[in-house]
Amino acid sequence: MKHTVTWSTLLAQRTQQMQRSSVREFVRLTQRPDVISFAGGLPEPGLFPVTELASAAESVWSHSAASALQYGESEGLAALRDWIAARHSRPGAEIRREQVLITSGAQQALSLLGQVLVDAGDQVLVENPTYLALLNAWRPMGADFVGLPTDAEGLRTDLLAEAESSRAKLAYVIPNFQNPQGTTLSLRRRVALLEWAARQGTFLIEDNPYGELRYDGTEVPHMLELAVELFEAPGNIPIVHVGTFSKVLSPGLRVGWMVAPLPLLDKLVQAKQSADLHTSSLNQHLVLALLQQGVLERLLPKWRALYRERRDAMLAALHEHAPAGTTWTRPAGGMFIMVTLPSELNARSLLAKALEHGVAFVPGDEFHLNNAGQNTLRLNFTNVTHAQIREGIARLGHALRAVAKGRSR
Amino acid sequence: MKHTVTWSTLLAQRTQQMQRSSVREFVRLTQRPDVISFAGGLPEPGLFPVTELASAAESVWSHSAASALQYGESEGLAALRDWIAARHSRPGAEIRREQVLITSGAQQALSLLGQVLVDAGDQVLVENPTYLALLNAWRPMGADFVGLPTDAEGLRTDLLAEAESSRAKLAYVIPNFQNPQGTTLSLRRRVALLEWAARQGTFLIEDNPYGELRYDGTEVPHMLELAVELFEAPGNIPIVHVGTFSKVLSPGLRVGWMVAPLPLLDKLVQAKQSADLHTSSLNQHLVLALLQQGVLERLLPKWRALYRERRDAMLAALHEHAPAGTTWTRPAGGMFIMVTLPSELNARSLLAKALEHGVAFVPGDEFHLNNAGQNTLRLNFTNVTHAQIREGIARLGHALRAVAKGRSR
Repeated sequence: MKHTVTWSTLLAQRTQQMQRSSVREFVRLTQRPDVISFAGGLPEPGLFPVTELASAAESVWSHSAASALQYGESEGLAALRDWIAARHSRPGAEIRREQVLITSGAQQALSLLGQVLVDAGDQVLVENPTYLALLNAWRPMGADFVGLPTDAEGLRTDLLAEAESSRAKLAYVIPNFQNPQGTTLSLRRRVALLEWAARQGTFLIEDNPYGELRYDGTEVPHMLELAVELFEAPGNIPIVHVGTFSKVLSPGLRVGWMVAPLPLLDKLVQAKQSADLHTSSLNQHLVLALLQQGVLERLLPKWRALYRERRDAMLAALHEHAPAGTTWTRPAGGMFIMVTLPSELNARSLLAKALEHGVAFVPGDEFHLNNAGQNTLRLNFTNVTHAQIREGIARLGHALRAVAKGRSR
Repeated sequence: MKHTVTWSTLLAQRTQQMQRSSVREFVRLTQRPDVISFAGGLPEPGLFPVTELASAAESVWSHSAASALQYGESEGLAALRDWIAARHSRPGAEIRREQVLITSGAQQALSLLGQVLVDAGDQVLVENPTYLALLNAWRPMGADFVGLPTDAEGLRTDLLAEAESSRAKLAYVIPNFQNPQGTTLSLRRRVALLEWAARQGTFLIEDNPYGELRYDGTEVPHMLELAVELFEAPGNIPIVHVGTFSKVLSPGLRVGWMVAPLPLLDKLVQAKQSADLHTSSLNQHLVLALLQQGVLERLLPKWRALYRERRDAMLAALHEHAPAGTTWTRPAGGMFIMVTLPSELNARSLLAKALEHGVAFVPGDEFHLNNAGQNTLRLNFTNVTHAQIREGIARLGHALRAVAKGRSR
């Protein structure tokens, strides 16, 4: 028997706007034993709290197995929501448990926000470049992205007054150690962005996966905290803060959260129910047990020390091996450095040559709107050893010289 | 400072079609210590494989911690996909690893399928009544549901020829021990549905959360298996099979899967990436370890024996206490019995009276399209003891008599 389904007409229209994460594809392509890869965005597995998790699991099996293995509330485990609410609360500016929704990683928070906030044609202001998976998640919903230029201080808030961005319904920013640039939005720009958003009636989304990974300088208050100070009616402020335990405990647990204004919570919970009912009860219990044991406080200094050393090694190696005319960001935290080549060079051509030399990265144009960033590349420094960084950046320098030489002939 | 966001215009249009699961709300409402609740759909936590999970976790910490705690492939853990592919393969009709996508519970499979397959206005044929969370997940995408009547043999496939359903792009069915009715689609009707779908070019979704929980009678082949037999080109057949470990290992792990035709996989993986990157690596490793230890084979007979006893207790108690004119389904498996009251009685009025008598259930109209099923109720028998079943159904009988008496006055 033959079926008569026509595959081409079966797919929903929104699938035309879906695509695989090209970063993930690049990472896959560059997984060769002879290649040193700066392409991924993975944490160093050597610091995963395995012993602590084993003990947390023991405690869960003994004391809360029936709840950890059963269906749970869509909002998340109450005690974990309380911990997160307390973490974000300041004297006189309390975040309530009811504002916290536990999600299956920060990515799911972004997906749910898109479902609840984005209609076809809605303008969304983003940093250019920005987090690729936000673009991929919201394009099928019809988001119309407006990319605003950035510099070493982050989003160019002086350009917000431009006509195009003033119609933005939503603005999405990664204020701390941005992916892919590693830059941090300065305090005065955070305030400027909040004030602009308030005037325009634009809803803000603060994505903060890397905030805990600061290696030097002073912490800048979250946009959420600033908003609570600037605005009346806490709990009713048009900003969502997205967080995750992926970079500071383990990404394999897939536990993230968002702190959202109360008028939005009901719809977010409904979207969460339809998406996956709730986040793994077991993993929420495990994270809670780790937090209650103080693992985060003990572990964070280790993550920071190791990553600081690797960032410094990469900056030093770039200084040593990058040809004149090449520039790069100097992140105070996070996982990434962005390199800018002389404008006549193309990072994709460089990648081909770099792979010949045994080193990989992600071309920066992947993260850009409007075909910008063709001469940029993203380097990850968290999942490579000191020795790999020295050798890999030396190889990159050779590849760069080879490409530049080829062009000048 | 005041912000100028207007909450009413902020929400995306699709949120108008979102709603909380009323079943979950009913369960919440009826959580009083004095109430015996048949409202939920939870497994019996006493049979969760805690000892086996503890040993599986030990093995994961020792042998695969770095992978179990790290980011993983969006498609899922290769070895787990292989296990599922093998489980669904028959000699001469192999299911390939590439057809298997691991999801965060079966609910996520349904959500991803909606994103990839449902355009606004697309007709979706379902059993009436059907799984409430499918309706909730697909309505915001604009699905136009067509409910077909059912009887003790499941979907009335003799009514498929009706004009309305012939335009259905998709058909969603729960062939085994359906939620909420507990009925099973007979073999001849499965074949009839497949043949109809092939003629019409309708894509089929077979949701099978309860299939392993059979208490008597003979197993009926999955629609997926029948499709492989009936159609040419395995791997290219327009049917998706959705499965889960939630009912046979633990729902708290949130690990499900779908077996899909190859032309659909790419888009499903893209939707999965945007939804939550991938399902918890840790939980996939735990499930794999349980499967490799043969836990499923050892555990299933226990689930079946306990639930069979509870189903029998509920059927016996209904026989004893239900007034004349009341009928109910006699499921060969699964978790639910559906009771039909005399047509002049309303299950919501009964619920109010039942709560006074200390017993709870979910009114059946929640699962129905077209305002049908006002005189039906869903009873869960898996998460209540034998004694609770006897006492609870006796109370239900009293409530029913009180309501009927009130009406006849």
